[in-house]
Amino acid sequence: MSWVTDENAALFTDLYELTMLQAYYREGLDTAVATFDLFVRQMPGRNYLLACGLDTVLHYLETLHFSQEALDYLASLGRFDADFLEYLARFRFTGDVYAIPEGTPVFAGEPLLQVVAPIGQAQLIETFVLNQITFQTGIASKASRVVTAAQGRLVADFGARRMHGADAALKAVRAYYIAGIQATSLVLGGQLYGMPVTGTMAHSYVEAHPTEEDAFRAFAGLYPGTTLLVDTYDTLEGVRKVIALCKEAGDQFQIGAIRLDSGDLATLAREARRMLDEAGLAHIKIFASGSLDEYRIAELLAQGAPIDGFGVGTRMGTISDRPYLDSAYKLSEFEGEGRMKLSLKKANLPGRKQVFRFYDENGYAAYDVIACHDEQLEGGEPLLRCVMRGGQRTEAGQDTLAAARERARQGLARLPERLLMLEEAVPPYPVRISERLQALGEAVRQRLMHQET
Amino acid sequence: MSWVTDENAALFTDLYELTMLQAYYREGLDTAVATFDLFVRQMPGRNYLLACGLDTVLHYLETLHFSQEALDYLASLGRFDADFLEYLARFRFTGDVYAIPEGTPVFAGEPLLQVVAPIGQAQLIETFVLNQITFQTGIASKASRVVTAAQGRLVADFGARRMHGADAALKAVRAYYIAGIQATSLVLGGQLYGMPVTGTMAHSYVEAHPTEEDAFRAFAGLYPGTTLLVDTYDTLEGVRKVIALCKEAGDQFQIGAIRLDSGDLATLAREARRMLDEAGLAHIKIFASGSLDEYRIAELLAQGAPIDGFGVGTRMGTISDRPYLDSAYKLSEFEGEGRMKLSLKKANLPGRKQVFRFYDENGYAAYDVIACHDEQLEGGEPLLRCVMRGGQRTEAGQDTLAAARERARQGLARLPERLLMLEEAVPPYPVRISERLQALGEAVRQRLMHQET
Repeated sequence: MSWVTDENAALFTDLYELTMLQAYYREGLDTAVATFDLFVRQMPGRNYLLACGLDTVLHYLETLHFSQEALDYLASLGRFDADFLEYLARFRFTGDVYAIPEGTPVFAGEPLLQVVAPIGQAQLIETFVLNQITFQTGIASKASRVVTAAQGRLVADFGARRMHGADAALKAVRAYYIAGIQATSLVLGGQLYGMPVTGTMAHSYVEAHPTEEDAFRAFAGLYPGTTLLVDTYDTLEGVRKVIALCKEAGDQFQIGAIRLDSGDLATLAREARRMLDEAGLAHIKIFASGSLDEYRIAELLAQGAPIDGFGVGTRMGTISDRPYLDSAYKLSEFEGEGRMKLSLKKANLPGRKQVFRFYDENGYAAYDVIACHDEQLEGGEPLLRCVMRGGQRTEAGQDTLAAARERARQGLARLPERLLMLEEAVPPYPVRISERLQALGEAVRQRLMHQET
Repeated sequence: MSWVTDENAALFTDLYELTMLQAYYREGLDTAVATFDLFVRQMPGRNYLLACGLDTVLHYLETLHFSQEALDYLASLGRFDADFLEYLARFRFTGDVYAIPEGTPVFAGEPLLQVVAPIGQAQLIETFVLNQITFQTGIASKASRVVTAAQGRLVADFGARRMHGADAALKAVRAYYIAGIQATSLVLGGQLYGMPVTGTMAHSYVEAHPTEEDAFRAFAGLYPGTTLLVDTYDTLEGVRKVIALCKEAGDQFQIGAIRLDSGDLATLAREARRMLDEAGLAHIKIFASGSLDEYRIAELLAQGAPIDGFGVGTRMGTISDRPYLDSAYKLSEFEGEGRMKLSLKKANLPGRKQVFRFYDENGYAAYDVIACHDEQLEGGEPLLRCVMRGGQRTEAGQDTLAAARERARQGLARLPERLLMLEEAVPPYPVRISERLQALGEAVRQRLMHQET
């Protein structure tokens, strides 16, 4: 059996990170200080991204080590020398990390994370750091759109069953929490992240009883105020049975909501609402699920569907319209000198950086400027903070999930409204490059082109 | 920090599985035997799926238990009684599992897995079982297309960095192995599944050296026969440097391949091939990476690009064109009686089943028949096997990865050729329902409609 844990996470790395590390070690370069930037190259048809995943990365960096089992496996590959394996046995992450805090709206080109560390260390961590930040940022950004589309109605995560593996489902819960989702059905997510857990009933429960009424009666008896799933056989027939049971059993049959999970949700919700209201059951809410995402929710609400809450699963959980971000982790400085790739369309900006956010007179974010790390841009809010120094979290690195959620809430409230629409904003949010950083980029490009020709 | 492990996997479940379990327990129904089918409702624009994920599921079932920590958390929710928590403390999976072995090509509607167990047990495991089978089957199916498109050329997995979390990247390695991918860059995948590990070098390694030549010389010196990445600054310039170093250093500079990672791969590959061949370096291979998937590989090979191997990452790793399967886990029998949902478009077939595959006179798969479990269909190969009995793996449940890989190879070789194309096959592979199963479905539907009206 195989899980990724703190014990084996050091091997959650691409082989070339280790072969390069051994090369640096042999060449005596492994302790030379490098800066790597983690950024998203292009916005994936989103108006903003929500930074997410930092806490997972910091924990990984704090606990990173090679177990004896890991070293034995590496030895078995025949590519690593004994003294390098001894070096790995002592390996710890001792670098500094600068990051934009979780929950902050961010944009293409902005370093979400900047790692300043001996190059061997900064290189080794690439695979894991990209994996977690890419996924968590991607899914937090998706969830934020779903929350916005629901216009304040309850949104619950129902996604675990069709997501990409167990870690995705679990880490999504923390991303969802930050993005403003109210509850999850994944119990482990509740335990580990303090997210409220929620759930209704499955069709199988109804089917395992002689009749739908028997199932409703038994479940509501045990869980007063519960939500009953009414579409196992015939949705409106199910609603009628709920109404009959409410009339017949009175206080013995208290339910909070019904759930619709198939069919034309808008029409069924309207009809169910009418039936419940006419029966004097206006307090029973309508909860909908089944192939929902931000587009479908917006459509349902535009149709005036009287739905009070949404269970959102697979499409949000697999980020199905944009299943990945074009993220990159690139060397930007080595031994104090700016570095960059020149490859067509994949060039990056050299040097250590800071991102400044500027607000207009009404307090809305107006534009960002990516600058050199030691620039002071008056009136701009610096977004990158030192979250780890010498391998230890700073105070800024001890952010809570609640703080990140509140930061997301406030950050979104300060975005211009066109960015909160589901369609692509015109114009997109402006991200500028400071003059000094542009000049540095030009100088490094010139230097590299001369030296390489 | 938070990982899913054997210790907490019992809480990797939707809350409603536990509330339903408590309800069954209270109603004295928890030990009544139920059958659940796991199947894919609709083919997701694929001509076949490769069954995958069973071994992970069997391990989970063998080790499933509630730790004290899990029980304490559940108690804190205030929804579960003390005697039910004691019941959970003793909870183990004691049921039977029938499954189509990993690596078998499968189709919509066919039960990949059939769980026969006390309903409380069969219900609780739904979330985890669906999560692993849906993802592993989805990604094995994607990878199988990539392998086919590469027409025998090397395909290596480079995907970990942008996949959905750590478990996805790890479990993908076993799915890739079954699907015929030759190697992975993920070291942990190599350790845990015995998959050959591979890798080249990153742009950062080139950039960390004074010149590209210095980087090439250092890396090839340490790793004779390695692959050099030539596109950091200018691809064809990089190729020229490799050629010059080969001429200058001779035996001191042995490399096996160059890697192209950006630009117009077909044109660059042709030009690089010409340059290498003219320099007498026909033995140096060309390896390509960057936004590859089965469509792009097919296109490159159709253009005659002289590429010897492909590093395939993000698009395969996130199954980007079809990020999820429409999988379901549905009650089909309860206390010996067929059960089904009647919901529009989501109805399922009742009863325990067997799937028979029929071959034509040339040995190619001609059609499948989904039948009742005790039917004998002459000439058909039964696909479902008993892999677990009373919570213990049977011999058929102890399949090796190598056996699954070989099964996939043979299974694909026996599929009609139209199914191996990337476009949707016309006609699709025929899956029929036996007359007896159809009659059972009709009878159960009639019974349910009468009893519910």
